[in-house]
Amino acid sequence: MSDRPNTPLLDRVSRPADLKQFSDGQLVQLASELRAETISAVSQTGGHLGAGLGVVELTVALHAIFDTPRDKIVWDVGHQCYPHKILTGRRDRIRTLRQKDGLSGFTKRAESPYDAFGAAHSSTSISAALGFSVARDLGGVTPEGLGDAIAVIGDGAMSAGMAFEAMNNAGHLGKRLIVILNDNEMSIAPPTGALSSYLSRLYAEEPFQELKAAAKGAVSLLPQPFREGAKRAKDMLKGMAMGGTLFESLGFSYIGPIDGHDLHQILPILRMVKTRATGPILIHALTRKGKGYAPAETARDKGHATAKFDVVTGEQKKAPSNAPSYTSVFGKALVDEASRDDKIVAVTAAMPDGTGLNLFAERYPSRCFDVGIAEQHGVTFSAALAAGGMKPFCAIYSTFLQRGYDQVVHDVAIQRLPVRFAIDRAGLVGADGATHAGAFDIAYMATLPGMVVMAAADEAELKHMVATAAAHDDGPIAFRYPRGEGAGVELPERGEVLEIGKGRMIRDGSRVAILSFGTRLAEVEKAAEALAAKGITPTVADARFAKPLDRDLILQLAADHEALITIEEGAIGGFGSHVAQLLADAGVFDSGLKFRQMVLPDIFIDQASPADMYAVAGMNAEQIEAKVLDVLGVTRIGEKRA
Amino acid sequence: MSDRPNTPLLDRVSRPADLKQFSDGQLVQLASELRAETISAVSQTGGHLGAGLGVVELTVALHAIFDTPRDKIVWDVGHQCYPHKILTGRRDRIRTLRQKDGLSGFTKRAESPYDAFGAAHSSTSISAALGFSVARDLGGVTPEGLGDAIAVIGDGAMSAGMAFEAMNNAGHLGKRLIVILNDNEMSIAPPTGALSSYLSRLYAEEPFQELKAAAKGAVSLLPQPFREGAKRAKDMLKGMAMGGTLFESLGFSYIGPIDGHDLHQILPILRMVKTRATGPILIHALTRKGKGYAPAETARDKGHATAKFDVVTGEQKKAPSNAPSYTSVFGKALVDEASRDDKIVAVTAAMPDGTGLNLFAERYPSRCFDVGIAEQHGVTFSAALAAGGMKPFCAIYSTFLQRGYDQVVHDVAIQRLPVRFAIDRAGLVGADGATHAGAFDIAYMATLPGMVVMAAADEAELKHMVATAAAHDDGPIAFRYPRGEGAGVELPERGEVLEIGKGRMIRDGSRVAILSFGTRLAEVEKAAEALAAKGITPTVADARFAKPLDRDLILQLAADHEALITIEEGAIGGFGSHVAQLLADAGVFDSGLKFRQMVLPDIFIDQASPADMYAVAGMNAEQIEAKVLDVLGVTRIGEKRA
Repeated sequence: MSDRPNTPLLDRVSRPADLKQFSDGQLVQLASELRAETISAVSQTGGHLGAGLGVVELTVALHAIFDTPRDKIVWDVGHQCYPHKILTGRRDRIRTLRQKDGLSGFTKRAESPYDAFGAAHSSTSISAALGFSVARDLGGVTPEGLGDAIAVIGDGAMSAGMAFEAMNNAGHLGKRLIVILNDNEMSIAPPTGALSSYLSRLYAEEPFQELKAAAKGAVSLLPQPFREGAKRAKDMLKGMAMGGTLFESLGFSYIGPIDGHDLHQILPILRMVKTRATGPILIHALTRKGKGYAPAETARDKGHATAKFDVVTGEQKKAPSNAPSYTSVFGKALVDEASRDDKIVAVTAAMPDGTGLNLFAERYPSRCFDVGIAEQHGVTFSAALAAGGMKPFCAIYSTFLQRGYDQVVHDVAIQRLPVRFAIDRAGLVGADGATHAGAFDIAYMATLPGMVVMAAADEAELKHMVATAAAHDDGPIAFRYPRGEGAGVELPERGEVLEIGKGRMIRDGSRVAILSFGTRLAEVEKAAEALAAKGITPTVADARFAKPLDRDLILQLAADHEALITIEEGAIGGFGSHVAQLLADAGVFDSGLKFRQMVLPDIFIDQASPADMYAVAGMNAEQIEAKVLDVLGVTRIGEKRA
Repeated sequence: MSDRPNTPLLDRVSRPADLKQFSDGQLVQLASELRAETISAVSQTGGHLGAGLGVVELTVALHAIFDTPRDKIVWDVGHQCYPHKILTGRRDRIRTLRQKDGLSGFTKRAESPYDAFGAAHSSTSISAALGFSVARDLGGVTPEGLGDAIAVIGDGAMSAGMAFEAMNNAGHLGKRLIVILNDNEMSIAPPTGALSSYLSRLYAEEPFQELKAAAKGAVSLLPQPFREGAKRAKDMLKGMAMGGTLFESLGFSYIGPIDGHDLHQILPILRMVKTRATGPILIHALTRKGKGYAPAETARDKGHATAKFDVVTGEQKKAPSNAPSYTSVFGKALVDEASRDDKIVAVTAAMPDGTGLNLFAERYPSRCFDVGIAEQHGVTFSAALAAGGMKPFCAIYSTFLQRGYDQVVHDVAIQRLPVRFAIDRAGLVGADGATHAGAFDIAYMATLPGMVVMAAADEAELKHMVATAAAHDDGPIAFRYPRGEGAGVELPERGEVLEIGKGRMIRDGSRVAILSFGTRLAEVEKAAEALAAKGITPTVADARFAKPLDRDLILQLAADHEALITIEEGAIGGFGSHVAQLLADAGVFDSGLKFRQMVLPDIFIDQASPADMYAVAGMNAEQIEAKVLDVLGVTRIGEKRA
């Protein structure tokens, strides 16, 4: 196609083994072609661009030197894997990235044997690579064989506790294991934390050019590797270390820093490591996120995640938005509350932009804390801020709050500390797929004694819930809201403080009541309209609270209707389950009630548009309508089902 | 009382401020009295002995130098807090430790303003102390004021990722914050991991006596502190550092190692730190777990947790056991399975004895992995072991598995990797109280697509479930079982592989069916006996599986009875909720069913015996009986309720 880059060498690669035919010089050209192909593909699909561009050379080098899929490359987070996918037999589908029925935007075991370990959340790669190493040494088998394990992890991801735990364990076990620290001084946001400063010092101590020369010097020793014994190799590795004591403290041999975009540095080092390594080794590679594509390199987020764009200008083709995003409504509402209450503080785990806290940070920099990729710490830090008399808003996506779950239980809920959890990306999220779905938070939060759990039905409700959370000082409170645009409703000047545990009636009807928790309310209303046209007028209510439940409202709905249907953007065990327990305890089922719970189905749903994903889940308007007809026993209007 | 130690100085202490009256020499004597009082108290109550004895001098020094409760001491884990409780107005209740209505065995905010932050799970203290420091600097208020924050954390706890996350954030923020690393080379088990080796090297480099002398020498400079400027102080702190580069990498000033049992070292250093500290400081104190009580010092676990004992002999007074513990049944069953399958491996997070994996580790040392206090890593490591063709049993207590929840979702469940979760301490656990209750695992595990969730009704069932998990290679599987002794049933020679998703009938009856999930079955059977004597003969079934449910069994029970009651040792959102969803979807409620779910109540239940705790929960035999009578509308036999 005319808009495709010219890629003569890449065209000769259908699988990684094909890279073995190329000279080092050809691999440099191949990397250049791979970069162009990646840019071209993402320009059509949108997606994570900067991360992939930063590891083009590492990707080429790893596949050229190691024997994948027998050797296991574990890409941390996995959003940098587009070049890897292009090299591993998926080039023909690379322009389906993140689309329905297309390639996942992350590594995914079900997609390819070259995706040794799926990812999407950060900082799992060293644990996974260590597991492969140990399995190999114990005689574990996989269909592709089991050789070396190589984790590729960013400096942001390295700051998470999980990565430290894995390093600590790997250093202790002493197995052959390769970790490549892909240090681009940039995760989604600029990195924070002392580790980041430490890494900066590692390569700030001498000018980079000198390091590069020194590394090259060391590498030039390599042509005679076979005459040198293991001890010599070890000494050389040590000698190349120009820092890295932190990693050495943890039992790793440290090599670096090297230029992660210079294949003439990377290739010889990987060859040496492959030949000589006996224990855990960390290779510290300096890269640039967005490398080689000016619009990405100069973007504030280094092209972290992008819409479709024009390759020449870099201009993104975003659909015009009809309403503000829930994220921005949250961010602005919090700034508004904070302007009246100087005890309000905010905590994010490396997602200031994604959570909307960038707005808060601009206005109140001393009251906003980016703790890094550290949800565990972030939650307990918030708990202590509350114990210290502050009003912390801990803003963590539903799927990432899973990382801090024990801290929610142990440090927040048991102590009844008033931490406010702002749970963005609740429900299905679209292109990021199953790993990012916010499916479980209602279940895992509402099961905790003393936790208040709210869901916003629209952006005005979200604003009320921010105000409600700010005012709620008697224990923890959580409010969830989805990714994407609001419903387009008018925003109140100022959020109202809602009465805890009280829902609201949306429309009065008869026979069937639909009790919605969250933003399915819009689909419920559509369904109600469609049903009204057929002579069935459902009552619709917005529960607002999964905990505590609006007992009076729910029992009244049960008493006044032959059927009651709950709906929520979450998996089993959440809102509907709490309603069922209430109805059971109250004896409502004793004499019969057509009760149904609409929850996410018992599957992980692959990426697609949120509407398509909710269709898979059976939760769009027409499916709600069908559920109502089914529960009332109406197959055609006016007719009772046999 | 005659069996109480002689404690003339301690008798003059009713609150920490009383320590200000004592000279350093008197504080040494006070520490000795405090140690004797601690031993005396624990000999009567049982509990965590070794940890408290290891921090007697630190406890005295911290309360003597700092101004608690305005200054916040955050004890990591909290099980070392008995001496702290004695000094902070709770001496009169110290012999109620871990008893019903008595003092908690951990720090607990609701118990005392001196317990600045509750704990029981490890590695939260630095996050909490940092939260207090930040709150202080932002003008946060607490009823007791808000001054310094001091975290006291063990070397085992320091190896958890959460502690690293907190250090990383603290080093970045640069707030005044004091961390005391209580390094006893011993958590519950001997510590593991590279960090532990690193710490050993820190003080192995020079003989301990020399370090001690050097530290004393530095301290002798202190009488003239006021003439020295801030820079001088900083240089001195640095000069005292004899290692600690890992901590310095993370932005902490490092002091140590010092002898944590020598008040003449501790007191001057704390005075200096209190006067001079501007940023985060780590004081590395070497202590001995069980210090000063020979039976504890020489015990394998250093007196970690003990029953009541004879102070003179150290002999523990344990009630004779009637049946093997679930833990040991699990350990032996796994060894048995492993003898026939060399792909079986086991993973524990620093709890080899507590989980029963010590038996496995003795028999198969190369197949057993203690990853340290690192549940996040442990779960993902297990996932990769499974991906590498092994059969990992990941044995983590219910309450601690919360720490690895995201990894269960993201690395295990989404990838359908056959990790076997052995979930010990499921349900209420007795003396350890609410923080250790295994209340939430059914809800948070069963909500995950593809997860198989079992609960053992007795120890024979547990043996079957170990066999079932070993045989289950199509995705993840979890089985839960409680703390304590089995029911005393005969153990099968070898575990049977159960059919996935099939329960079993226990007794046939009429009118009401009780469907039990887990070890409440014994109480259900007692209730059934009592009811039979009154002419009501309930059907009793053991569900075995919360996921997948035995659909046929449950619908049959519903069809054949006027009432169906579920019971489980877990909070709302779990087994009963899944049954309710099934019944709702199948339309069973449409025509009426007296359905009830017996779950843990919506409160955190304080420590007591498990039987007493289940009485609070309303789940003992007589309460089950009452529930049956109530649901059938029988207030007295033969009489329908009005």
